[in-house]
Amino acid sequence: MTSINPDNYKLSDKTANLTAHEIFPFSETAQPETREFLQKVIDILLDYVNACNDRNEKILDFHHPEEMKKLLDLEISENPAPLQQLIVDCATTLKYQVKTGHPHFFNQLSCGLDIVSMAGEWLTATANTNMFTYEIAPVFILMENVVLSKMRQIIGYDGGDSILAPGGSISNLYAFLAARHKMFPGYKEHGPRGLPGDLCMFTSDQCHYSVKSCSSVCGLGTENCVMVPSDESGKMIPSELERLILERKARGQIPFFVNATAGTTVLGAFDPLHEIADICQKYNCWFHVDAAWGGGLLLSKKYRNPRMSGIERSDSVTWNPHKLMGALLQCSSIHFKEDTQQDVTCQMKLPTVALTVKKENERERKLKNKIEIFFQGLLLSCNQMSAEYLFMTDKLYDIGYDTGDKVIQCGRHNDIFKLWLQWRAEGDAGFEARMDRLMELTAYEVKRIKEQSDKFYLIMEPECVNVSFWYIPRRLRGSPHTPAKVVELAKICPIIKARMMQSGTLMVGYQPDDRRPNFFRSIISSAAVTEKDVDFMLNEIDRLGQDL
Amino acid sequence: MTSINPDNYKLSDKTANLTAHEIFPFSETAQPETREFLQKVIDILLDYVNACNDRNEKILDFHHPEEMKKLLDLEISENPAPLQQLIVDCATTLKYQVKTGHPHFFNQLSCGLDIVSMAGEWLTATANTNMFTYEIAPVFILMENVVLSKMRQIIGYDGGDSILAPGGSISNLYAFLAARHKMFPGYKEHGPRGLPGDLCMFTSDQCHYSVKSCSSVCGLGTENCVMVPSDESGKMIPSELERLILERKARGQIPFFVNATAGTTVLGAFDPLHEIADICQKYNCWFHVDAAWGGGLLLSKKYRNPRMSGIERSDSVTWNPHKLMGALLQCSSIHFKEDTQQDVTCQMKLPTVALTVKKENERERKLKNKIEIFFQGLLLSCNQMSAEYLFMTDKLYDIGYDTGDKVIQCGRHNDIFKLWLQWRAEGDAGFEARMDRLMELTAYEVKRIKEQSDKFYLIMEPECVNVSFWYIPRRLRGSPHTPAKVVELAKICPIIKARMMQSGTLMVGYQPDDRRPNFFRSIISSAAVTEKDVDFMLNEIDRLGQDL
Repeated sequence: MTSINPDNYKLSDKTANLTAHEIFPFSETAQPETREFLQKVIDILLDYVNACNDRNEKILDFHHPEEMKKLLDLEISENPAPLQQLIVDCATTLKYQVKTGHPHFFNQLSCGLDIVSMAGEWLTATANTNMFTYEIAPVFILMENVVLSKMRQIIGYDGGDSILAPGGSISNLYAFLAARHKMFPGYKEHGPRGLPGDLCMFTSDQCHYSVKSCSSVCGLGTENCVMVPSDESGKMIPSELERLILERKARGQIPFFVNATAGTTVLGAFDPLHEIADICQKYNCWFHVDAAWGGGLLLSKKYRNPRMSGIERSDSVTWNPHKLMGALLQCSSIHFKEDTQQDVTCQMKLPTVALTVKKENERERKLKNKIEIFFQGLLLSCNQMSAEYLFMTDKLYDIGYDTGDKVIQCGRHNDIFKLWLQWRAEGDAGFEARMDRLMELTAYEVKRIKEQSDKFYLIMEPECVNVSFWYIPRRLRGSPHTPAKVVELAKICPIIKARMMQSGTLMVGYQPDDRRPNFFRSIISSAAVTEKDVDFMLNEIDRLGQDL
Repeated sequence: MTSINPDNYKLSDKTANLTAHEIFPFSETAQPETREFLQKVIDILLDYVNACNDRNEKILDFHHPEEMKKLLDLEISENPAPLQQLIVDCATTLKYQVKTGHPHFFNQLSCGLDIVSMAGEWLTATANTNMFTYEIAPVFILMENVVLSKMRQIIGYDGGDSILAPGGSISNLYAFLAARHKMFPGYKEHGPRGLPGDLCMFTSDQCHYSVKSCSSVCGLGTENCVMVPSDESGKMIPSELERLILERKARGQIPFFVNATAGTTVLGAFDPLHEIADICQKYNCWFHVDAAWGGGLLLSKKYRNPRMSGIERSDSVTWNPHKLMGALLQCSSIHFKEDTQQDVTCQMKLPTVALTVKKENERERKLKNKIEIFFQGLLLSCNQMSAEYLFMTDKLYDIGYDTGDKVIQCGRHNDIFKLWLQWRAEGDAGFEARMDRLMELTAYEVKRIKEQSDKFYLIMEPECVNVSFWYIPRRLRGSPHTPAKVVELAKICPIIKARMMQSGTLMVGYQPDDRRPNFFRSIISSAAVTEKDVDFMLNEIDRLGQDL
């Protein structure tokens, strides 16, 4: 047992009663006290890392929100809290936090606690910079170029452009915006006016909800986000896609964007990319692949195909390293086949147009035209607002390295360092082995479920690390698998989940889908998991549920 | 001198050659080696913290991108890098990083390196969770409630709702989306169809560019984002706002959203909120205040008014603690006057509708109606997509605490802990003193500029910590301040900036604006800055520029 005990972390008497305004950066001379405080925080974090890797530790100490409020002292008072109180606060917070890195946490697509990625995120915090310009993030901007270019090569793009975004939902939004801008360049300025019909987009009924959210955010309206039926295994049915495109066209609408999912959230299904690519080509639609979840398998020669065969034909790909690859949250990327910054390596400078005083519109237009002609890039042309206070053209260095005007954020968190460091640490071979290992463990889980078919019902053979199953309590064993029985099995899921959380021993998710009521979905995406943890999961569900 | 030397950080022979797959979480038994590796990273970070607080240190070691690529080894190879290489990589990265926390960094709105906030961000990384459900982020969700509710009280809202977003641009986007949904509830589903005219929005020509970006992202078209002229000091002219609203109405358009800026990016100007509120009331427009930059001054009794008098009349406010308040990037918040989750404290549970198998549309509609009726909330109603795998209604705990369906992200980074911990550390009194101190230092800078009026030209009296000025090199001293002279002064800015970066001694920004060519804009938002640093800034500019 290595549980975090807030009483265990004592600062020296001298430091304990100082306040934040008495250490760095307020006090120049407080180097020893600053270091002592930070080292004590690190002692807590290192103990927490141990706890996350200790199978005897609970995953969580569950309390309902109202109880939790009584256990914690969260209030902020008029006066500063001394440093010792902050140390206690840190320890208490981790005492009640859910250990998402614990080997018995199978609950979420993003889980695990990768040590190198974590070290990277610590450094990121300390570097505390913004990714919008080379001026203040030189090394990180270059790392972003190296890693994103590598990811595009892995996808199968020759050239292209990419950006890191705060999560897969925003990445999908970027794809949508780029598609709309590419196909309807006047939309940025004029909106839908002048178009002969409503734009519409297509995605499977198994897609991530952020795709539908795009249609709402971007003003299309969710009714213009067409949900294409999927088959039994959760894959989009291409003939249905074509039928629905034709149906919408017949109504006078303009199909322009198709989202295929490579690794659906619940079932882990892969849409048939080649067939969807053919349809996109035929009907002149932008072809986006949401591989936020499945993307990691691109790194595996064994598992990449046939799952993602055809991804190289897409126009854009979302791929979240914070999922299968185990990078810390947040780390999401969006990749485009089309070049944005063709001249990024060119040291040539723009004329210093910003030096002359003119009316805003005239200057802005002139500057924008110059930049657009210079770069002729999609992402920049789509999202740039040419803020002159940030993206001046008369800077010391080649402004082709500034990324800020390509994105819809201004401040942008540094999400690259942790990924770059982790990739250095793994090497391509290490990442491949990691992906293969997750799939092997998944196969082991499936095998164990099948071997215990009295207690567990496997819903389908998984293509990814999502395993969908029901637990069969003692009273229901041996009877035929009827719809009535399924209703009973479904009722059991939330009860077992509640017991898991209350006992603190295990976390596995459940949910209904379009074809069936509640079922368990376990996820193996943490590098901490081993065969014995898979066995523990199944045994523990059985222990918690056999009386139901 | 405390420069980071990558050769100084040696792991023991035993640990140095291990790879990432030989420590936690891959190897259960590698606790000592894991700890040694992490502690060595921390040694580097603690040295970097010292370097940031050492006035004898350079801020940066500038190299052009192509040179920098030669200095760094950024490539990722087939094989894993040993742990010692990763340690060298961390140190090298910081060696070439710009010290945004250095007392001589006056370059960006977000700068400084707050020690408590940094400690908070380290813990956040280690907790590595997602803010979408209470299930996996119980303590952090409760902290978010406490802090955001406090922030709304400070704004002057009674009740209301808030969310943390990845940066001010996305916060402004949330305000826009909520406004559109509130005023045109059918838009989410149907888009603009059926509306009698184009929607249009208003903001000053000094606003942050993300406001205009909203109009592009959300499909209005940038031509429907009307730029209202500002006066000499950078404040929106209310009579111009009214004139433009009437003009657009006369064209058959529908004005619905007005953005006022509380602290503009370049000049630090505050729009007249009461007068804008009156106009919004008169023409039934949503009144949003972008206080991303100026928001921190809400904490100061001395400086809050008159700058932000009237903010309590707004419908929504963007406020970035990662700016004046010194929280680490990213930490941005958006606040709404209207309640979202009226019943958040109610422990009542929804009926478990998700248990029955029905066709998707029917079930989805039913579930959505129930949730909407239950919560009757704006943010939820605006953004929810009711993903059943995540936001099930048959959970163990009160799902009113889950935030995931209120936001357009799915995965959401934990941005609250660092802010909560910092506010605990400061107390209300400490934060107020901090704000007052930044303003005092700004007044000191203005005084010193005026005392050296031969060398510096103050462009205007600042309202915030932005100070706008020109440096006057020797050859131009004493001559009248004519437009021709201004053109000369403007040409000097990029040259001095380039010299600053090359000497590595100072970072101050420059830019043109609508009324004038390039000028310097210094920012005092770092708690590290003292009067002697302000003097250093002015002296160093003089040293670098007097021969020009």
